[in-house]
Amino acid sequence: MKAYQNMTYDELLSEKEALEAQYKEVKEQKLNLNMARGKPSKAQLALSMPMLDILNSESDIMDDEGNDCRNYGVMEGLLECRELIGSLVGVPAENVIMGGNSSLNSMYNTISRSMTHGVNGSTPWCKLDSVKFLCPAPGYDRHFAITEFFGITMITIPMTEDGPDMDMVEHYVNTDPAVKGIWCVPKYTNPQGYVYSDETVRRFARLKPAAEDFRIFWDNAYCVHHLYEDKQIEIPEILSECAAAGNPDMVYEFISTSKITFAGSGVAAIASSKNNLDFIRKQMTVMTISHDKMNQLRHVRFLKDAANVNAHMMKHAEIMRPKFEAVLQVLDEELKDLEVGSWIKPLGGYFISFDALEGCAKAIVAKVKEAGVIMTGAGAAYPYGKDPKDSNIRIAPSLPPLEELVSAAKVFALCVKLVSVEKYLSEKASETKAG
Amino acid sequence: MKAYQNMTYDELLSEKEALEAQYKEVKEQKLNLNMARGKPSKAQLALSMPMLDILNSESDIMDDEGNDCRNYGVMEGLLECRELIGSLVGVPAENVIMGGNSSLNSMYNTISRSMTHGVNGSTPWCKLDSVKFLCPAPGYDRHFAITEFFGITMITIPMTEDGPDMDMVEHYVNTDPAVKGIWCVPKYTNPQGYVYSDETVRRFARLKPAAEDFRIFWDNAYCVHHLYEDKQIEIPEILSECAAAGNPDMVYEFISTSKITFAGSGVAAIASSKNNLDFIRKQMTVMTISHDKMNQLRHVRFLKDAANVNAHMMKHAEIMRPKFEAVLQVLDEELKDLEVGSWIKPLGGYFISFDALEGCAKAIVAKVKEAGVIMTGAGAAYPYGKDPKDSNIRIAPSLPPLEELVSAAKVFALCVKLVSVEKYLSEKASETKAG
Repeated sequence: MKAYQNMTYDELLSEKEALEAQYKEVKEQKLNLNMARGKPSKAQLALSMPMLDILNSESDIMDDEGNDCRNYGVMEGLLECRELIGSLVGVPAENVIMGGNSSLNSMYNTISRSMTHGVNGSTPWCKLDSVKFLCPAPGYDRHFAITEFFGITMITIPMTEDGPDMDMVEHYVNTDPAVKGIWCVPKYTNPQGYVYSDETVRRFARLKPAAEDFRIFWDNAYCVHHLYEDKQIEIPEILSECAAAGNPDMVYEFISTSKITFAGSGVAAIASSKNNLDFIRKQMTVMTISHDKMNQLRHVRFLKDAANVNAHMMKHAEIMRPKFEAVLQVLDEELKDLEVGSWIKPLGGYFISFDALEGCAKAIVAKVKEAGVIMTGAGAAYPYGKDPKDSNIRIAPSLPPLEELVSAAKVFALCVKLVSVEKYLSEKASETKAG
Repeated sequence: MKAYQNMTYDELLSEKEALEAQYKEVKEQKLNLNMARGKPSKAQLALSMPMLDILNSESDIMDDEGNDCRNYGVMEGLLECRELIGSLVGVPAENVIMGGNSSLNSMYNTISRSMTHGVNGSTPWCKLDSVKFLCPAPGYDRHFAITEFFGITMITIPMTEDGPDMDMVEHYVNTDPAVKGIWCVPKYTNPQGYVYSDETVRRFARLKPAAEDFRIFWDNAYCVHHLYEDKQIEIPEILSECAAAGNPDMVYEFISTSKITFAGSGVAAIASSKNNLDFIRKQMTVMTISHDKMNQLRHVRFLKDAANVNAHMMKHAEIMRPKFEAVLQVLDEELKDLEVGSWIKPLGGYFISFDALEGCAKAIVAKVKEAGVIMTGAGAAYPYGKDPKDSNIRIAPSLPPLEELVSAAKVFALCVKLVSVEKYLSEKASETKAG
């Protein structure tokens, strides 16, 4: 089929009529599908069911260090769990402190603490006139929600295939002392699935921040979330890169098992330098006695070690991969020739990022919703929910069963076509008027 | 035996010699005992072992509302868990939001949020020149640690058998707009084991705060933690009392199962008015996706309902009661006649509070430590760790096995005697010099 931009007004009009007829039919099916959030599917959750009773009435509930995991104490978390989580990102246990059930919560705490208590002795951010964060976008909406909640000014940094635009990052970080942080998902970025290049990671490590309390918020959410056994991308380990570059305290790394075991019932951790962890410990001793060590023990006994985690993640990949491929196939078949958008084929993570024609994203998501398919709100991947081009749409293929997912993807493709046709029609109409 | 205060100098001197000989013997035993923190014993923890595999590979992991508890979502926590926790304190589920594994963490969050975002729209506390909290003391050291961490000025309120000195509470709360909160443990107070009288609870409800953002931090930590089946004290339900008195938004109530099931692996909750919970929800949506619903489900399936929780708590009481009684017996036998301190016989909670002669608490705890018994630091139960009389010592009988506990209590009694004798000797010496 011909690309829409090359169609005549009449061709577009007849295409529109055909699409509208299809859309009417779809609506009559009264679908109720969801491609909105990166939630694991039931098949994925089933993979971790043996973890549920791995601790049982007869279990030894002492950790390797002799702590009774049922009782208070061990604020930093079980050593064996810190070792396990550290091994997933190449960091020794001494640089890892366990958090609760959510790395998002650890990020929130980190910002909240910086607001009230500063960073390792710096002025509390709430006492400053201006605090800014760099936000590579499209990015993770919940990151931006945290910075927005605390009134932090967000500066959008464009994304490239190699990661954030590092010229811009260096410019802002190295010259503006109000820039206190940057949100990063270095591996299989949310939503594009890009992986930061080695050079990007090293340029991060070599930053020369104008602010002593500048920190990189390195959300390694998808560190082991590969889609292909033979295409597992690794990135340089950021803590040691920063240390080698003379910036040992510049990064907080966040890790979680939410998408390894159970979403919301996993364990989270923060990895950082001794100085940073010492400061965090001062807060932790006040805010909690200990996190849930039974869940930590459950995870260690079930996940065992990094090799076993990788084997476990390949089972996830077996379930996820066909879904990603099915959506990509629908996009290829339905949209490629029409030149009405572009998308990225990721090798890991949870999302497919789709860029529609400018000004079409909101209209597409609304049309999709009208047809009974929920997607992430257009613009959600940008600071303040505002996509300057109104173009980016995040597709989350993980949750629906394959058959439903294909239906949803087809509805999506149909709506992309419909909105794109309308855009071109309206453009042609203005041209005609103008002529 | 004669009370020390009635002994002559020589009698005291020979008593001291006898006690020092005993103390030397005790030190030679190289004891390693701990009466420091309110940690449940292994026997208590064993009571909840069936909870560990109550969810297993074959389990139905859907809640009553059809939520898959293994996945993201249900931010407020499972309705059935909110019902269960609410039932323990007489509050409907709609007024309960589940937290993480620690009510202390919920309290920290509440203060932290008030610092950065105010209370239901009030000025953030970090923007105010002065923020004060009332601290009934002796009280819970970790409460005071939170307020101290945030630089909040703490005002000590004396405790009575009926609860905090309400004349003072009313004076401060009703006249000083900088007073933003008060820490309360209304039932089986930490450390004295007092229960607020009905009149105290109602005077709290009838406060007329000068500050619109004044809140009562009602830490109902020991709501079901009775020591005697036939002496279970109940207090008026604070939320409805406040509502009836025209102060519906004045209280945050905190509840946790840490000392019902597993310490640090329980579930916590906050109970409050709709207005307060609505404001909390705004923060929660930013700080987390959901708390650990699998642990909530585990708790609901194990604990079932309030009646079953009471039956379960009576099993705890069977283990705790003999320990309390053993310590009290040692105190009675060793110290009563000597008039070197006073103590309270609690009907619930986790502690026995001992008041030594003025100026003796630090010395006693140090001597006890030298003999191999760890106790809570003297003064810990007071704001800034400063007991004005240096008199209060918290005894935590729960953790050690009965036999060890009796040894530890005897060491404690010996040290009380030794330090008290020294105090009287030094007083007599000064009198003699003065004479």
